[in-house]
Amino acid sequence: MTMQARAVETRRTIVRAAADAFVRHGYSGASLAEIAKQAGVTKGALYFHFPSKTALAEAMIQTQREANDELARQVGDHDGDGLDLLVELTRGLARRLIDDPTLQAAMRLAVELGETRDAVIAETYQAWERLVADVARAAKERGELADRVEPAELARFLVAAFTGLQTVSLVASGLTDLDRRVEEMWRLLRPGLAPS
Amino acid sequence: MTMQARAVETRRTIVRAAADAFVRHGYSGASLAEIAKQAGVTKGALYFHFPSKTALAEAMIQTQREANDELARQVGDHDGDGLDLLVELTRGLARRLIDDPTLQAAMRLAVELGETRDAVIAETYQAWERLVADVARAAKERGELADRVEPAELARFLVAAFTGLQTVSLVASGLTDLDRRVEEMWRLLRPGLAPS
Repeated sequence: MTMQARAVETRRTIVRAAADAFVRHGYSGASLAEIAKQAGVTKGALYFHFPSKTALAEAMIQTQREANDELARQVGDHDGDGLDLLVELTRGLARRLIDDPTLQAAMRLAVELGETRDAVIAETYQAWERLVADVARAAKERGELADRVEPAELARFLVAAFTGLQTVSLVASGLTDLDRRVEEMWRLLRPGLAPS
Repeated sequence: MTMQARAVETRRTIVRAAADAFVRHGYSGASLAEIAKQAGVTKGALYFHFPSKTALAEAMIQTQREANDELARQVGDHDGDGLDLLVELTRGLARRLIDDPTLQAAMRLAVELGETRDAVIAETYQAWERLVADVARAAKERGELADRVEPAELARFLVAAFTGLQTVSLVASGLTDLDRRVEEMWRLLRPGLAPS
Protein backbone atom coordinates (compact mmCIF):
# COMPACT_ATOMS: atom_id res chain seq x y z
CA MET A 1 0.00 0.00 0.00
CA THR A 2 1.21 3.50 -0.75
CA MET A 3 1.36 5.99 2.12
CA GLN A 4 -1.67 7.77 0.71
CA ALA A 5 -3.71 4.56 0.45
CA ARG A 6 -2.76 3.76 4.06
CA ALA A 7 -3.87 7.23 5.18
CA VAL A 8 -7.24 6.81 3.43
CA GLU A 9 -7.65 3.39 5.04
CA THR A 10 -6.78 4.74 8.52
CA ARG A 11 -9.20 7.59 8.10
CA ARG A 12 -11.96 5.17 7.13
CA THR A 13 -11.24 2.95 10.15
CA ILE A 14 -11.41 5.96 12.46
CA VAL A 15 -14.71 7.16 10.95
CA ARG A 16 -16.17 3.69 11.42
CA ALA A 17 -15.02 3.54 15.07
CA ALA A 18 -16.39 7.04 15.70
CA ALA A 19 -19.72 6.05 14.13
CA ASP A 20 -19.98 3.09 16.51
CA ALA A 21 -19.15 5.31 19.49
CA PHE A 22 -21.66 8.02 18.48
CA VAL A 23 -24.44 5.47 17.93
CA ARG A 24 -23.72 3.78 21.28
CA HIS A 25 -22.92 6.75 23.53
CA GLY A 26 -24.16 9.81 21.65
CA TYR A 27 -21.99 12.76 20.72
CA SER A 28 -21.52 14.09 24.26
CA GLY A 29 -20.89 10.62 25.65
CA ALA A 30 -18.38 9.43 23.04
CA SER A 31 -14.72 9.68 24.08
CA LEU A 32 -11.83 10.33 21.67
CA ALA A 33 -9.61 7.96 23.66
CA GLU A 34 -12.12 5.15 23.19
CA ILE A 35 -12.49 5.90 19.47
CA ALA A 36 -8.70 5.78 19.00
CA LYS A 37 -8.53 2.52 20.93
CA GLN A 38 -11.32 0.88 18.92
CA ALA A 39 -9.79 2.05 15.63
CA GLY A 40 -6.42 0.63 16.73
CA VAL A 41 -4.60 3.94 16.26
CA THR A 42 -2.67 6.21 18.62
CA LYS A 43 -4.31 9.40 19.88
CA GLY A 44 -1.68 11.25 17.82
CA ALA A 45 -2.84 9.53 14.63
CA LEU A 46 -6.46 10.32 15.50
CA TYR A 47 -5.66 14.01 16.05
CA PHE A 48 -3.69 14.07 12.78
CA HIS A 49 -6.79 13.03 10.82
CA PHE A 50 -9.44 14.66 13.00
CA PRO A 51 -8.26 17.54 15.20
CA SER A 52 -11.52 17.60 17.21
CA LYS A 53 -14.73 15.74 17.98
CA THR A 54 -16.49 18.31 15.82
CA ALA A 55 -14.31 17.23 12.87
CA LEU A 56 -15.46 13.64 13.42
CA ALA A 57 -19.10 14.74 13.56
CA GLU A 58 -18.52 16.63 10.32
CA ALA A 59 -17.29 13.38 8.71
CA MET A 60 -20.58 11.67 9.66
CA ILE A 61 -22.57 14.57 8.29
CA GLN A 62 -20.53 14.32 5.08
CA THR A 63 -21.79 10.72 4.72
CA GLN A 64 -25.30 12.04 5.03
CA ARG A 65 -24.62 14.64 2.33
CA GLU A 66 -23.39 11.85 0.06
CA ALA A 67 -26.54 9.84 0.80
CA ASN A 68 -28.53 12.97 -0.09
CA ASP A 69 -26.62 13.31 -3.36
CA GLU A 70 -27.52 9.72 -4.17
CA LEU A 71 -31.19 10.45 -3.44
CA ALA A 72 -30.95 13.42 -5.81
CA ARG A 73 -29.47 11.18 -8.54
CA GLN A 74 -32.29 8.70 -8.00
CA VAL A 75 -34.76 11.56 -8.50
CA GLY A 76 -32.97 12.70 -11.67
CA ASP A 77 -33.01 9.18 -13.16
CA HIS A 78 -36.68 8.48 -12.47
CA ASP A 79 -39.40 9.09 -15.03
CA GLY A 80 -42.42 7.17 -13.69
CA ASP A 81 -45.10 8.04 -11.14
CA GLY A 82 -44.06 10.66 -8.58
CA LEU A 83 -45.64 8.90 -5.60
CA ASP A 84 -43.89 5.67 -6.59
CA LEU A 85 -40.64 7.62 -6.54
CA LEU A 86 -41.29 8.97 -3.04
CA VAL A 87 -42.01 5.43 -1.83
CA GLU A 88 -38.77 4.20 -3.42
CA LEU A 89 -36.73 7.03 -1.89
CA THR A 90 -37.91 6.24 1.65
CA ARG A 91 -37.40 2.50 1.10
CA GLY A 92 -33.87 3.10 -0.19
CA LEU A 93 -32.96 5.40 2.67
CA ALA A 94 -34.32 2.91 5.23
CA ARG A 95 -32.24 0.13 3.63
CA ARG A 96 -29.10 2.26 3.64
CA LEU A 97 -29.64 3.30 7.25
CA ILE A 98 -29.98 -0.31 8.34
CA ASP A 99 -26.74 -1.21 6.51
CA ASP A 100 -24.51 1.81 7.20
CA PRO A 101 -23.40 2.65 10.77
CA THR A 102 -21.90 5.97 9.61
CA LEU A 103 -25.28 7.09 8.33
CA GLN A 104 -26.90 5.89 11.56
CA ALA A 105 -24.42 8.02 13.47
CA ALA A 106 -25.23 11.02 11.27
CA MET A 107 -28.98 10.66 11.97
CA ARG A 108 -28.24 10.20 15.66
CA LEU A 109 -26.15 13.39 15.71
CA ALA A 110 -28.86 15.27 13.81
CA VAL A 111 -31.29 14.40 16.60
CA GLU A 112 -28.89 14.87 19.52
CA LEU A 113 -27.40 18.13 18.33
CA GLY A 114 -30.83 19.41 17.35
CA GLU A 115 -31.17 21.64 20.35
CA THR A 116 -28.12 23.70 19.41
CA ARG A 117 -30.02 24.57 16.23
CA ASP A 118 -26.78 24.01 14.43
CA ALA A 119 -27.05 25.32 10.88
CA VAL A 120 -25.54 22.12 9.46
CA ILE A 121 -28.25 19.92 10.98
CA ALA A 122 -31.12 22.19 9.97
CA GLU A 123 -29.60 22.22 6.48
CA THR A 124 -29.82 18.42 6.20
CA TYR A 125 -33.54 18.43 6.91
CA GLN A 126 -34.00 21.35 4.52
CA ALA A 127 -32.07 19.55 1.75
CA TRP A 128 -34.45 16.58 2.09
CA GLU A 129 -37.48 18.84 2.18
CA ARG A 130 -36.38 20.59 -1.03
CA LEU A 131 -35.80 17.28 -2.79
CA VAL A 132 -39.16 15.82 -1.75
CA ALA A 133 -40.95 19.10 -2.55
CA ASP A 134 -39.47 19.05 -6.09
CA VAL A 135 -40.70 15.49 -6.66
CA ALA A 136 -44.12 16.34 -5.20
CA ARG A 137 -44.48 19.49 -7.31
CA ALA A 138 -43.69 17.59 -10.51
CA ALA A 139 -46.12 14.82 -9.47
CA LYS A 140 -48.82 17.37 -8.84
CA GLU A 141 -48.29 18.99 -12.24
CA ARG A 142 -48.73 15.57 -13.85
CA GLY A 143 -51.97 15.02 -11.91
CA GLU A 144 -50.54 12.26 -9.71
CA LEU A 145 -51.46 14.01 -6.43
CA ALA A 146 -54.85 15.05 -5.09
CA ASP A 147 -55.61 18.76 -5.49
CA ARG A 148 -55.67 19.33 -1.74
CA VAL A 149 -52.06 18.08 -1.30
CA GLU A 150 -49.64 20.98 -1.06
CA PRO A 151 -46.15 19.81 -2.20
CA ALA A 152 -44.15 21.81 0.39
CA GLU A 153 -46.44 20.59 3.16
CA LEU A 154 -46.09 16.97 2.04
CA ALA A 155 -42.30 17.41 1.97
CA ARG A 156 -42.16 18.84 5.49
CA PHE A 157 -44.33 16.03 6.79
CA LEU A 158 -42.52 13.16 5.04
CA VAL A 159 -39.10 14.28 6.26
CA ALA A 160 -40.34 14.62 9.86
CA ALA A 161 -42.32 11.37 9.77
CA PHE A 162 -39.34 9.42 8.41
CA THR A 163 -37.12 10.95 11.12
CA GLY A 164 -39.61 9.71 13.71
CA LEU A 165 -39.83 6.25 12.17
CA GLN A 166 -36.10 5.74 12.48
CA THR A 167 -35.97 7.19 16.01
CA VAL A 168 -38.69 4.89 17.31
CA SER A 169 -37.45 1.93 15.27
CA LEU A 170 -34.01 2.28 16.84
CA VAL A 171 -35.48 2.08 20.35
CA ALA A 172 -38.02 -0.60 19.57
CA SER A 173 -35.90 -2.94 17.46
CA GLY A 174 -32.39 -1.59 16.79
CA LEU A 175 -33.69 -0.57 13.32
CA THR A 176 -34.67 -4.11 12.32
CA ASP A 177 -38.33 -3.11 11.91
CA LEU A 178 -37.62 0.10 9.94
CA ASP A 179 -38.53 -1.47 6.57
CA ARG A 180 -41.86 -2.62 7.93
CA ARG A 181 -42.58 0.80 9.44
CA VAL A 182 -41.91 2.48 6.08
CA GLU A 183 -44.39 0.13 4.37
CA GLU A 184 -46.96 0.86 7.09
CA MET A 185 -46.53 4.61 6.59
CA TRP A 186 -47.28 4.35 2.89
CA ARG A 187 -50.25 2.04 3.37
CA LEU A 188 -51.79 4.69 5.65
CA LEU A 189 -50.68 7.82 3.83
CA ARG A 190 -50.89 6.99 0.14
CA PRO A 191 -54.66 6.51 -0.23
CA GLY A 192 -55.19 10.09 0.95
CA LEU A 193 -52.57 11.52 -1.42
CA ALA A 194 -53.76 10.00 -4.70
CA PRO A 195 -56.26 11.97 -6.81
CA SER A 196 -59.84 10.79 -6.25
CA MET B 1 -43.55 27.38 54.71
CA THR B 2 -43.32 24.05 56.51
CA MET B 3 -40.17 21.99 56.07
CA GLN B 4 -42.06 19.58 53.85
CA ALA B 5 -43.41 22.34 51.62
CA ARG B 6 -39.88 23.71 51.29
CA ALA B 7 -38.57 20.29 50.31
CA VAL B 8 -41.25 19.93 47.63
CA GLU B 9 -40.41 23.41 46.35
CA THR B 10 -36.66 22.66 46.26
CA ARG B 11 -37.29 19.41 44.45
CA ARG B 12 -39.38 21.21 41.84
CA THR B 13 -36.70 23.87 41.33
CA ILE B 14 -34.06 21.18 40.81
CA VAL B 15 -36.24 19.28 38.31
CA ARG B 16 -36.78 22.49 36.37
CA ALA B 17 -33.02 23.28 36.32
CA ALA B 18 -32.25 19.71 35.24
CA ALA B 19 -34.85 19.94 32.46
CA ASP B 20 -33.14 23.08 31.13
CA ALA B 21 -29.74 21.41 31.25
CA PHE B 22 -30.98 18.21 29.53
CA VAL B 23 -32.71 20.19 26.77
CA ARG B 24 -29.63 22.36 26.20
CA HIS B 25 -26.78 19.86 26.62
CA GLY B 26 -28.41 16.43 26.40
CA TYR B 27 -28.19 13.78 29.10
CA SER B 28 -24.50 12.98 28.61
CA GLY B 29 -23.56 16.65 28.34
CA ALA B 30 -25.50 17.93 31.37
CA SER B 31 -23.44 18.40 34.55
CA LEU B 32 -24.78 17.94 38.09
CA ALA B 33 -22.65 20.86 39.28
CA GLU B 34 -24.27 23.15 36.73
CA ILE B 35 -27.75 21.89 37.61
CA ALA B 36 -27.13 22.58 41.32
CA LYS B 37 -25.81 26.05 40.50
CA GLN B 38 -28.77 26.95 38.28
CA ALA B 39 -31.23 25.65 40.89
CA GLY B 40 -29.47 27.74 43.55
CA VAL B 41 -28.85 24.72 45.82
CA THR B 42 -25.70 23.10 47.17
CA LYS B 43 -24.46 19.87 45.64
CA GLY B 44 -25.34 18.25 48.96
CA ALA B 45 -28.95 19.34 48.65
CA LEU B 46 -29.04 18.09 45.06
CA TYR B 47 -27.70 14.67 46.09
CA PHE B 48 -30.20 14.54 48.96
CA HIS B 49 -33.12 14.82 46.52
CA PHE B 50 -31.54 13.05 43.54
CA PRO B 51 -28.65 10.69 44.32
CA SER B 52 -27.68 10.35 40.63
CA LYS B 53 -28.19 11.74 37.15
CA THR B 54 -30.31 8.66 36.45
CA ALA B 55 -32.64 9.72 39.28
CA LEU B 56 -33.04 13.13 37.61
CA ALA B 57 -33.78 11.47 34.27
CA GLU B 58 -36.35 9.32 36.04
CA ALA B 59 -38.05 12.51 37.31
CA MET B 60 -38.38 13.76 33.69
CA ILE B 61 -39.77 10.43 32.60
CA GLN B 62 -42.25 10.62 35.49
CA THR B 63 -43.53 13.90 33.97
CA GLN B 64 -44.04 12.06 30.72
CA ARG B 65 -45.96 9.31 32.52
CA GLU B 66 -48.21 11.96 34.07
CA ALA B 67 -48.75 13.49 30.63
CA ASN B 68 -49.66 10.00 29.39
CA ASP B 69 -52.13 9.58 32.25
CA GLU B 70 -53.74 12.85 31.24
CA LEU B 71 -54.01 11.61 27.65
CA ALA B 72 -55.67 8.45 28.98
CA ARG B 73 -58.17 10.56 30.96
CA GLN B 74 -58.92 12.58 27.82
CA VAL B 75 -59.62 9.31 26.01
CA GLY B 76 -61.91 8.12 28.81
CA ASP B 77 -63.88 11.37 28.83
CA HIS B 78 -64.43 11.52 25.07
CA ASP B 79 -67.55 10.19 23.37
CA GLY B 80 -67.48 11.71 19.88
CA ASP B 81 -65.72 10.72 16.66
CA GLY B 82 -62.55 8.63 17.17
CA LEU B 83 -60.51 10.46 14.53
CA ASP B 84 -61.46 13.80 16.11
CA LEU B 85 -60.14 12.44 19.40
CA LEU B 86 -56.81 11.43 17.84
CA VAL B 87 -56.46 14.91 16.35
CA GLU B 88 -57.23 16.48 19.75
CA LEU B 89 -54.72 14.23 21.53
CA THR B 90 -51.87 15.24 19.22
CA ARG B 91 -52.85 18.92 19.42
CA GLY B 92 -52.94 18.75 23.21
CA LEU B 93 -49.59 17.00 23.45
CA ALA B 94 -48.00 19.53 21.07
CA ARG B 95 -49.35 22.39 23.18
CA ARG B 96 -48.08 20.83 26.43
CA LEU B 97 -44.65 20.16 24.90
CA ILE B 98 -44.32 23.77 23.80
CA ASP B 99 -45.25 24.99 27.29
CA ASP B 100 -43.47 22.47 29.57
CA PRO B 101 -39.64 22.27 29.61
CA THR B 102 -39.75 19.12 31.79
CA LEU B 103 -41.75 17.31 29.12
CA GLN B 104 -39.37 18.61 26.44
CA ALA B 105 -36.49 17.17 28.45
CA ALA B 106 -38.30 13.83 28.74
CA MET B 107 -38.78 13.65 24.95
CA ARG B 108 -35.16 14.67 24.44
CA LEU B 109 -34.00 11.89 26.78
CA ALA B 110 -36.25 9.38 25.04
CA VAL B 111 -34.46 10.17 21.79
CA GLU B 112 -30.93 10.45 23.21
CA LEU B 113 -31.11 7.37 25.37
CA GLY B 114 -32.82 5.43 22.62
CA GLU B 115 -29.72 3.54 21.61
CA THR B 116 -29.39 1.93 25.02
CA ARG B 117 -32.80 0.36 24.31
CA ASP B 118 -33.65 1.23 27.85
CA ALA B 119 -36.84 -0.53 28.86
CA VAL B 120 -38.26 2.69 30.35
CA ILE B 121 -37.99 4.59 27.06
CA ALA B 122 -39.39 1.78 24.94
CA GLU B 123 -42.23 1.55 27.45
CA THR B 124 -43.19 5.21 26.89
CA TYR B 125 -43.60 4.68 23.16
CA GLN B 126 -45.50 1.46 23.82
CA ALA B 127 -47.84 3.20 26.28
CA TRP B 128 -48.71 5.76 23.58
CA GLU B 129 -49.13 3.04 20.99
CA ARG B 130 -51.54 1.11 23.24
CA LEU B 131 -53.57 4.25 23.94
CA VAL B 132 -53.82 5.24 20.27
CA ALA B 133 -54.56 1.65 19.24
CA ASP B 134 -57.46 1.50 21.75
CA VAL B 135 -58.95 4.70 20.32
CA ALA B 136 -58.44 3.48 16.75
CA ARG B 137 -60.01 0.09 17.46
CA ALA B 138 -63.11 1.69 18.99
CA ALA B 139 -63.30 4.12 16.04
CA LYS B 140 -63.09 1.24 13.60
CA GLU B 141 -65.85 -0.67 15.37
CA ARG B 142 -68.07 2.41 15.04
CA GLY B 143 -67.28 2.64 11.32
CA GLU B 144 -65.25 5.86 11.63
CA LEU B 145 -62.15 4.40 9.96
CA ALA B 146 -61.70 2.99 6.46
CA ASP B 147 -61.69 -0.83 6.31
CA ARG B 148 -58.07 -0.94 5.16
CA VAL B 149 -56.82 0.94 8.26
CA GLU B 150 -55.39 -1.47 10.81
CA PRO B 151 -55.63 0.12 14.32
CA ALA B 152 -52.28 -1.19 15.62
CA GLU B 153 -50.55 -0.04 12.44
CA LEU B 154 -52.10 3.42 12.71
CA ALA B 155 -50.98 3.62 16.34
CA ARG B 156 -47.38 2.68 15.53
CA PHE B 157 -47.27 5.21 12.74
CA LEU B 158 -48.87 8.10 14.66
CA VAL B 159 -46.52 7.73 17.62
CA ALA B 160 -43.45 7.64 15.37
CA ALA B 161 -44.66 10.48 13.13
CA PHE B 162 -45.38 12.70 16.14
CA THR B 163 -41.93 11.91 17.56
CA GLY B 164 -40.43 13.03 14.25
CA LEU B 165 -42.52 16.20 14.11
CA GLN B 166 -41.23 17.34 17.47
CA THR B 167 -37.62 16.39 16.65
CA VAL B 168 -37.57 18.35 13.40
CA SER B 169 -39.63 21.20 14.85
CA LEU B 170 -37.08 21.62 17.64
CA VAL B 171 -34.23 22.00 15.13
CA ALA B 172 -36.17 24.11 12.65
CA SER B 173 -37.92 26.49 15.02
CA GLY B 174 -37.30 25.67 18.70
CA LEU B 175 -40.78 24.02 18.69
CA THR B 176 -42.60 27.21 17.67
CA ASP B 177 -43.90 25.57 14.47
CA LEU B 178 -44.99 22.31 16.15
CA ASP B 179 -48.71 23.28 16.15
CA ARG B 180 -48.59 24.01 12.45
CA ARG B 181 -46.81 20.73 11.71
CA VAL B 182 -49.49 18.79 13.61
CA GLU B 183 -52.22 20.46 11.52
CA GLU B 184 -50.31 19.65 8.33
CA MET B 185 -50.01 16.00 9.35
CA TRP B 186 -53.75 15.68 9.78
CA ARG B 187 -54.56 17.50 6.54
CA LEU B 188 -52.43 14.94 4.71
CA LEU B 189 -53.29 11.83 6.70
CA ARG B 190 -56.95 12.17 7.57
CA PRO B 191 -58.51 11.96 4.08
CA GLY B 192 -56.95 8.50 3.65
CA LEU B 193 -58.17 7.24 7.03
CA ALA B 194 -61.87 8.13 6.76
CA PRO B 195 -64.26 5.54 5.32
CA SER B 196 -64.97 6.19 1.63
